[in-house]
Amino acid sequence: MENLTEAKLYAQLQELIARITDLDEKSMTQIQERLDSLTKPQGSLGQLEHFAKQLGGIQRTSRPNIQKKAVLLMAGDHGVVEEGVSAFPQEVTPQMAYNIMAGGAGINVLARQAKAEVFLTDVGVAFPLDGNINHQRVANGTQNMTKGPAMTRQEALQALMVGADIADEKIHAGYNLFATGELGIGNTTPSSAIVALLTDSSIEEVVGRGTGIDDAGLLKKRSAIEKAIEVNKPDKDDALDVLTKVGGLEIAAIAGSILQAAASRVPIVIDGFISTAGALIAAKLAPKSTAFMIPSHGSVEIGHRKALAALDLEPVLNLNMRLGEGTGAALTFYFVEAALHILEEMATFADAGVCEQL
Amino acid sequence: MENLTEAKLYAQLQELIARITDLDEKSMTQIQERLDSLTKPQGSLGQLEHFAKQLGGIQRTSRPNIQKKAVLLMAGDHGVVEEGVSAFPQEVTPQMAYNIMAGGAGINVLARQAKAEVFLTDVGVAFPLDGNINHQRVANGTQNMTKGPAMTRQEALQALMVGADIADEKIHAGYNLFATGELGIGNTTPSSAIVALLTDSSIEEVVGRGTGIDDAGLLKKRSAIEKAIEVNKPDKDDALDVLTKVGGLEIAAIAGSILQAAASRVPIVIDGFISTAGALIAAKLAPKSTAFMIPSHGSVEIGHRKALAALDLEPVLNLNMRLGEGTGAALTFYFVEAALHILEEMATFADAGVCEQL
Repeated sequence: MENLTEAKLYAQLQELIARITDLDEKSMTQIQERLDSLTKPQGSLGQLEHFAKQLGGIQRTSRPNIQKKAVLLMAGDHGVVEEGVSAFPQEVTPQMAYNIMAGGAGINVLARQAKAEVFLTDVGVAFPLDGNINHQRVANGTQNMTKGPAMTRQEALQALMVGADIADEKIHAGYNLFATGELGIGNTTPSSAIVALLTDSSIEEVVGRGTGIDDAGLLKKRSAIEKAIEVNKPDKDDALDVLTKVGGLEIAAIAGSILQAAASRVPIVIDGFISTAGALIAAKLAPKSTAFMIPSHGSVEIGHRKALAALDLEPVLNLNMRLGEGTGAALTFYFVEAALHILEEMATFADAGVCEQL
Repeated sequence: MENLTEAKLYAQLQELIARITDLDEKSMTQIQERLDSLTKPQGSLGQLEHFAKQLGGIQRTSRPNIQKKAVLLMAGDHGVVEEGVSAFPQEVTPQMAYNIMAGGAGINVLARQAKAEVFLTDVGVAFPLDGNINHQRVANGTQNMTKGPAMTRQEALQALMVGADIADEKIHAGYNLFATGELGIGNTTPSSAIVALLTDSSIEEVVGRGTGIDDAGLLKKRSAIEKAIEVNKPDKDDALDVLTKVGGLEIAAIAGSILQAAASRVPIVIDGFISTAGALIAAKLAPKSTAFMIPSHGSVEIGHRKALAALDLEPVLNLNMRLGEGTGAALTFYFVEAALHILEEMATFADAGVCEQL
């Protein structure tokens, strides 16, 4: 019975992946022509011009638009915190969740400024949680990955589909620009493991201090990741195996939401280190999904730039942030909107009578 | 008579500089305490936290606010274009100015998005210009600096005070956040000369392609700057001498607006390469003025990061832009506002009942 369900979930995932196709070249060419007719030296608005083209390619139109914006926040806990890898106890995850539900967290403030909505989902918090949260808990946190797989393959698939389903629901409700986000004490540890494996990097290169562990904590974190990889022997070429053995439930849901966004042709802004680990899983499962990803900030976490480079994404914000919650991604909405304002509102050379060779 | 006026202008500049004092430590300490009481790991909002403190230190309050925002755009031409240093003819400067007056330029679009106003001043355009522009022309462009000083010392002082006076006027009209900006064909050439001299860099290190010259143009540009420095022998330790001999009228006005902003305790966001050259002049004239500067984007222009580093500013936006007009600075307003929203709206640990050690 369980195998049947796993097989069914796996088939759903494959169907989702099969729906992801390339950006529309024709729309992108039309937008490039429009950009080159605007009163500026060609290419001089850099990344804003790139965003305009990307949105057109995603939406298959020369007049891309943004209707409603959503931050898809996934919450999950991590059994590996037993190894002393985090500066904070697991009790903080529900506290953070309640703070978000009450509108007092960093992401609430920045989403309000961006005129975006925050949707919080419990994919796998360890402690009880009630209130205004989408209850989709797959497990009460992951298992301690230094002693065996973080989750079962079925749980990983379930959590992926939780993310995909939330994205789908919001797309049907008219949202057409997403940000990823997460909360979960200890989640830079599985993220570091994922990034090390999927970018072929050493543990030292990708393991940072998370929300603020000391030197002793950093050593514990590195050794926990080494042990988890040694014990579980994840197959680097199988993203689902990596996710199952050294991943997290919220990371799986982030990957799922990215796959759904790509399949439904909605751009999705990738937040910091943990979100980028989720994006690496999505990219490994469906390489074409990267074209739907929009980079945000370069986090303080040392493995972040390595992970972004593997996705061919360059951060647009350099704010030395390390809060998570989708905060960097929510700030990036502003540039995506700026790109569309430029496309719609700037005068052309013909309009302005400006020297054509500019 | 001319000497008298020059002496008077010089005295005005010295008075302005004397009004610039340090940031208010007490307000900054209060803001740091507030930031540390908010529901996030300490320091995890990075540069946003820094902006909040900086604004408090500038406004001398623990509750800094932003009322109205202005982009102070300075237009000027450059005699050195005779040397073939620009991809565009000087006729384009007034065309760009008219496009801005009509609301169709990149800066108009981005200022509208930021709910900021654009104020355009003719400090020294070469060709006639009418319409809705602040007419403060000091000269019809600078002289060709490869043949002698770009301007007289009196003109440099006049242009500095034009910038200071516009800033003063807007401060009295209730604007309390500024962006610098400029337009003027050829103005990366004097900017490169200024940056080379004031950061003790070689010409190769700081001379880039501006809005898009080819290899031959790049060689002409380097050689024009070398010749200008050789002919004029500016004194590196005298910013006014550097400005006079190898600077520009709009660059002088930018420096003047920065000095006035600092003297009147108003933060000013520094745009790209040309604005940063103006900021270097301001910093050399009044080292305390740097505390009032807010960094924006890292321009494509190669000397830009060198110039920012000399001011101890790190760019917050990485958008590969090279349009000028204050576009990078106008985009940065959003992040200054985000910093204040965080300070005002985020819940404290006490409000949220979140684990105090977070």
